[in-house]
Amino acid sequence: MRTRAAVAVQAGKPLEIMDVNLDGPRAGEVLVEIKATGICHTDEFTRSGADPEGMFPAILGHEGAGIVVEVGPGVTSLKPGDHVIPLYTPECRECEYCLHPKTNLCQAIRSTQGQGLMPDGSSRFSMLDGTPILHYMGCSTFSNHTVLPEIALAKIREDAPFDKVCYIGCGVTTGIGAVINTAKVEIGSRAIVFGLGGIGLNVIQGLRLAGADQIVGVDLNPDKVEMATRFGMTHFVNPSEVEGDLVPYLVDLTKGGADYTFDATGNVKVMRDALECAHKGWGESIIIGVAPAGAEIATRPFQLVTGRTWKGTAFGGARGRTDVPKIVDWYMDGKIEIDPMITHTMPLEDINKGFDLMHAGESIRSVVIY
Amino acid sequence: MRTRAAVAVQAGKPLEIMDVNLDGPRAGEVLVEIKATGICHTDEFTRSGADPEGMFPAILGHEGAGIVVEVGPGVTSLKPGDHVIPLYTPECRECEYCLHPKTNLCQAIRSTQGQGLMPDGSSRFSMLDGTPILHYMGCSTFSNHTVLPEIALAKIREDAPFDKVCYIGCGVTTGIGAVINTAKVEIGSRAIVFGLGGIGLNVIQGLRLAGADQIVGVDLNPDKVEMATRFGMTHFVNPSEVEGDLVPYLVDLTKGGADYTFDATGNVKVMRDALECAHKGWGESIIIGVAPAGAEIATRPFQLVTGRTWKGTAFGGARGRTDVPKIVDWYMDGKIEIDPMITHTMPLEDINKGFDLMHAGESIRSVVIY
Ligand SMILES: NC(=O)c1ccc[n+]([C@@H]2O[C@H](COP(=O)([O-])OP(=O)(O)OC[C@H]3O[C@@H](n4cnc5c(N)ncnc54)[C@H](O)[C@@H]3O)[C@@H](O)[C@H]2O)c1
Ligand SMILES: NC(=O)c1ccc[n+]([C@@H]2O[C@H](COP(=O)([O-])OP(=O)(O)OC[C@H]3O[C@@H](n4cnc5c(N)ncnc54)[C@H](O)[C@@H]3O)[C@@H](O)[C@H]2O)c1
Repeated sequence: MRTRAAVAVQAGKPLEIMDVNLDGPRAGEVLVEIKATGICHTDEFTRSGADPEGMFPAILGHEGAGIVVEVGPGVTSLKPGDHVIPLYTPECRECEYCLHPKTNLCQAIRSTQGQGLMPDGSSRFSMLDGTPILHYMGCSTFSNHTVLPEIALAKIREDAPFDKVCYIGCGVTTGIGAVINTAKVEIGSRAIVFGLGGIGLNVIQGLRLAGADQIVGVDLNPDKVEMATRFGMTHFVNPSEVEGDLVPYLVDLTKGGADYTFDATGNVKVMRDALECAHKGWGESIIIGVAPAGAEIATRPFQLVTGRTWKGTAFGGARGRTDVPKIVDWYMDGKIEIDPMITHTMPLEDINKGFDLMHAGESIRSVVIY
Repeated sequence: MRTRAAVAVQAGKPLEIMDVNLDGPRAGEVLVEIKATGICHTDEFTRSGADPEGMFPAILGHEGAGIVVEVGPGVTSLKPGDHVIPLYTPECRECEYCLHPKTNLCQAIRSTQGQGLMPDGSSRFSMLDGTPILHYMGCSTFSNHTVLPEIALAKIREDAPFDKVCYIGCGVTTGIGAVINTAKVEIGSRAIVFGLGGIGLNVIQGLRLAGADQIVGVDLNPDKVEMATRFGMTHFVNPSEVEGDLVPYLVDLTKGGADYTFDATGNVKVMRDALECAHKGWGESIIIGVAPAGAEIATRPFQLVTGRTWKGTAFGGARGRTDVPKIVDWYMDGKIEIDPMITHTMPLEDINKGFDLMHAGESIRSVVIY
């Protein structure tokens, strides 16, 4: 079939909107009509050429929601008409990782996914002249139709609005999951969140959901205060307005250091600060941000010997097929908010405007509605 | 009273054996006759002058066992004749730290202990000419008699031999506790231990006790193999004999990385290797070793984002008054071994020989018997 897609033809170039060929689903695969997709920093990381593993031409996008159109042979858990959210971290429920209680990093299709291919080693997308186009993060939601493995689709309720719950495909789950699955924050905790962008705001609402007593937000941009406060931030700190060192200031504000700290900036210096303002004896610091290629984190080992723990999280530690439908329920039940974070929407033809808004720092999330 | 002690008169100088004055116990304090004491790297770290916080003159030693001689006013949990192990990490059972489920770092007397003083801000020790002598780590077990706060003494059974269980005052508890309290190693785990000295051997026997399936020991010194094997090591790796990089070699040996890794070397490069050969998704690396002043650990944050956890441990996460008597029971019941690790004993007059043996790498533990 033919479908409409935004193609990353070359690193650093705007996406090109065009018709592409899409082959139907093979064994274990599912054809999905994407109804809406968010634009995330990871897409931009690859589009811009900063991602050393980026490959082109490719159809980016990994934060979508849509409807199953057709299933390939052997697919049992989904049927046409089902509403789904694509998962860049799949959940096969059979590999060593899925069967281990401490991780969500299903490895079933990792190597082909990393090469921009379906599990059988081929691509379903091609240009009209026949040039193959690569998949991206196993999702390629910047195409109106896409093919995914069954294990990379979470089935969700049918009354959930696509243009909102698509954000659960990455940002919402990453932020809330970091709190709930990775940190396992207890009621009454004190926490510090560095970076109040799309991820940080979701960390903040995760902390509110988990019953944290003190939720300190740290950002260089004071424009972030209003929204963060709405999502549950109790204290704001702008590092550029702190006299002296930031770490002792934050330790003081949290009465000895925070029980949990989160980096949602991707800056390795911030990651160090986040660790060092965690409480001696029991504070845990969770890295969510993705650092530039080659950047390293550092600290004195004494910080760990005196009881701090340094962790990271990918996709918020969530097992997508199991956890994503629950988060959709939380949204529908009003336990979490998404609507105010979707600051801009646009048709696919205008997707490059979404990237411009991200660069200008004007959007929290731009969503493409097909 | 007068007692016999080895005094660190000046940084970098051998200890001087001399008679010293010792004031009796004040409120909440206990006078203990030390019967035996181990010589640990931390004593040497301070004696040598490498410890930037070292102060002199002081009576070092923190790995002892002895008998209560006299108790000061208000002491309720101990009486003359009780057998005890001094605790450099006390357990007041009342401070914020003792009441927190995740830490053993009791802060009740931290600031005075760090200054070499008793909790009331004074020293009990002085030279015969009246010059005050500092306490060390709240213990000063290189004196035949010493005074400690009640909260810094674990009461132990009376049939336990002083010249063996003194080692539980630091090395044994640090190594076994890192496995049991900090890592919480599960039955069937794969583990790697870097450094097969006094601490590493105890990590190894902790892993055996916890039911680990694979216990890889890593040391540059092949002389360590025999003893480590005796304590439960299943595989030995000498980094100088590995062709190519050590980390991928160890990941391969542990079939994807170890569930738990431990640094018992104090080398920051080894700490990085230990983290990076922990299993993707769930591996945890525990820093036990104490690094040189100013040294830093580093890694790419991706190592944490993909599921590895970096932790540290002090005194093996043990709450001394609660846990040390249990470890003494384990020794008496034959669940753990100590005797083969005590490779040398000597009278106090020969304590400097103990430091020489440590430097020569000939001893695992030297114990002074009074
Ligand atoms: N681990 C995962 O699974 C995962 C998933 C998605 C995104 N991410 C990463 O999360 C990070 C945040 O993503 P986002 O969409 O929220 O980005 P964003 O750009 O919307 O937000 C980042 C925020 O950090 C602030 N900031 C930048 N430098 C700062 C500093 N030095 N101190 C304080 N604040 C600072 C910015 O002002 C901004 O508000 C990115 O690195 C992204 O790649 C990780
Ligand atoms: N965290 C705590 O509470 C605590 C308590 C006591 C001791 N420590 C620390 O634990 C560490 C170990 O103490 P120990 O008494 O066992 O010391 P040790 O000297 O007896 O043993 C260290 C071992 O590490 C080996 N080693 C050194 N460099 C190595 C390398 N690059 N690769 C592999 N092996 C290497 C040595 O050959 C030796 O066998 C020290 O740093 C000590 O200060 C920590």
